Amino acid sequence: MNERILSKDNLVLKRLFNLDTNTYMDGALTAKTKEMLGLVASMVLRCDDCVKYHLEKCFEQQITTEEMMEIFAVANIVGGTIVIPHTRRALEYWEELPSSKDL
Amino acid sequence: MNERILSKDNLVLKRLFNLDTNTYMDGALTAKTKEMLGLVASMVLRCDDCVKYHLEKCFEQQITTEEMMEIFAVANIVGGTIVIPHTRRALEYWEELPSSKDL
Amino acid sequence: MNERILSKDNLVLKRLFNLDTNTYMDGALTAKTKEMLGLVASMVLRCDDCVKYHLEKCFEQQITTEEMMEIFAVANIVGGTIVIPHTRRALEYWEELPSSKDL
Amino acid sequence: MNERILSKDNLVLKRLFNLDTNTYMDGALTAKTKEMLGLVASMVLRCDDCVKYHLEKCFEQQITTEEMMEIFAVANIVGGTIVIPHTRRALEYWEELPSSKDL
Amino acid sequence: MNERILSKDNLVLKRLFNLDTNTYMDGALTAKTKEMLGLVASMVLRCDDCVKYHLEKCFEQQITTEEMMEIFAVANIVGGTIVIPHTRRALEYWEELPSSKDL
Amino acid sequence: MNERILSKDNLVLKRLFNLDTNTYMDGALTAKTKEMLGLVASMVLRCDDCVKYHLEKCFEQQITTEEMMEIFAVANIVGGTIVIPHTRRALEYWEELPSSKDL
Repeated sequence: MNERILSKDNLVLKRLFNLDTNTYMDGALTAKTKEMLGLVASMVLRCDDCVKYHLEKCFEQQITTEEMMEIFAVANIVGGTIVIPHTRRALEYWEELPSSKDL
Repeated sequence: MNERILSKDNLVLKRLFNLDTNTYMDGALTAKTKEMLGLVASMVLRCDDCVKYHLEKCFEQQITTEEMMEIFAVANIVGGTIVIPHTRRALEYWEELPSSKDL
Repeated sequence: MNERILSKDNLVLKRLFNLDTNTYMDGALTAKTKEMLGLVASMVLRCDDCVKYHLEKCFEQQITTEEMMEIFAVANIVGGTIVIPHTRRALEYWEELPSSKDL
Repeated sequence: MNERILSKDNLVLKRLFNLDTNTYMDGALTAKTKEMLGLVASMVLRCDDCVKYHLEKCFEQQITTEEMMEIFAVANIVGGTIVIPHTRRALEYWEELPSSKDL
Repeated sequence: MNERILSKDNLVLKRLFNLDTNTYMDGALTAKTKEMLGLVASMVLRCDDCVKYHLEKCFEQQITTEEMMEIFAVANIVGGTIVIPHTRRALEYWEELPSSKDL
Repeated sequence: MNERILSKDNLVLKRLFNLDTNTYMDGALTAKTKEMLGLVASMVLRCDDCVKYHLEKCFEQQITTEEMMEIFAVANIVGGTIVIPHTRRALEYWEELPSSKDL
C-alpha cells in the first residue's frame, strides 16, 4: 500500500517517506541503535504496524532476544501497562521471525 | 516532590519508582543505550519533565550533541511536528547542562 | 452498535451522539470543511473507525482524491510516521468507496 | 502470551506484572472502585485489550449495566468521540459476558 | 475564560460544557465515584488543568489522601512513568487545598 | 530556537522543517483550509505551541472568530473535554492577535 500512496504523487508524503528511510541510517549513532529508538517510540505510541516494521529491522541488525526484552521493559515502564498487549503481539511476531529464537 | 510522594507510603508507587530506577541499569543493553531509549520515548509522548530527566542522564553517559540531534530526529520523524516545541526546549536544556557544548 | 448504546438510555451518551451530528452541519464553515477537520483530527488520533466514518462523509461532500492526499499529508506531518499505517488503510478504504476513483 | 513474556525472565517486566496485580486489590478504595478506575483509564487511552480485561474484572465485581454505562459516559466526555468505537466494542463484549444482561 | 468561550455563542461548545457538568452528577454511580473516574482519566491523558479541576471536586467529595494515593497509583500503573510529573503536581495541589491534610 | 536546531546541521530535522513549511502551501486545498487542518490536529494532540503557531497563520488567512469557534467545536467534540483548557488558552491568544476581534 505504500506504493499506492506514492503513486498518488503527493510531494509532501513522498518526501516524508524518503526522510523516514534516511532517519535510520548509520550516522553518529549506528543503524542498530536507531532501530531500537524507532521501536521503543513505536511501542509507547502503541502502533502495532510500526512495531512490526522496526522488529524486522532490529532482527536484521542482529539484536538478541535478551536485548529485545530490555527494550520492551523500557517501553512498558515509560508507557505503562497499556503497552502490555502490544508487547505480547511484539514478542509473538519477534519469535516468528526466521531463527529469531536462535539469536 | 518525589520524596513527598514516597512519604505517603503507597506501596504500588514506591515499587514503581524503584522499578523505574532498575530499568535503566546496565544489562544486555548498556545504561547509555537505555537512557537514549527512555529519552526518545519521553519525547514522542511529549513529557518535558521526563525529557529533562533523561537529558541529564544522557549527559552523564557522555552522549555527544551530534548523537543527541539524531535521537531528536528519530523522535520528530516518528512523532511528527508536534514534537518540535519539545525538541526546542530539549536542546535549550541540553545546552545549559554544564559543558555540554564541549562534548 | 450505536443503536445498542442508545438503547441503554444513558442521557449523557445520547446527548453527546446528538451533539456529534450537529458539529458537522453547515455553519460559518461548510459541512465539507468540517468533515475535513473531523478527518484530520481522527487521523492524528489514529482512530481507524473514526477515519472511515469521516472518509464516507468526505466522499458525500465530493472531496477529490487530490484534496484527500493533501489532508493525509497534513495528518502525517503533524502526527508523524506512526500515522502512515492509518494512511494506508484510509487510502484503501477511500478507493473502495463507490466511484471514488472517478472524482 | 503473558506467560511467554514471563518465561523470558526479564526482571523489570516480571515485577511490573506483579505490581499491576497488586494495584487493583482492596485498600483504602475497594477492588470494585479500582477496577472502574482501571477501565476508564483504559478507555480514554483507547486500548481495547485492556478494556476487555477490566470489563471481566468489573463483571466479577458485580458492576451493573447501568453503572457501566455511566463509566462509558465519563470516558466519552473526557476522551471525546474517538472513544465511541471503543465504547461500541466494550458494550458488545460486556453483553457477551455470562449473564451480564441479568445484572 | 470558560465564560469568554461561552460568550461566543457556539452552540456545540455550550452544550458540551453543559453535558460535562451533567456527567458527574449522582446517578447509578455516586458523584464521588464519578469524580474519581474523571480524575484518573485526566491523569493518564496528562492534562494538568483537568487534574486540578477534578482534585477540587474530589476534595469537595471528602476523598481522603490515602484514597487519593491509590487513584494516583492506578494512573501511574496504567499510564506509566510519564504520569509521574503530573502526579507530583497533583499531590502538591492536593496538599494546598484547604485542610486537605487533615482529611 | 528553531534556528538553534537548524544550526546543528542535522539533515533529517532540516528537511522535516522544510517539509513542514511546504505542507501548508496552496495546492488542491487552499492554504486557508490547510491551516485550519493544522490547527485542529494540533488542538486534539494538545500542543499549545503548535496551536499558537497555527492561530497566527489562520489570522493571516483572515479566518473569522465565528469560523474559529467552529474549529474549536470540532476539536472539543473529537478530542473531548481534555481539550477545553487548550481551547481557553487558544481563544485568549486569538483575541490578543492584532485586531482579531474586528474580523
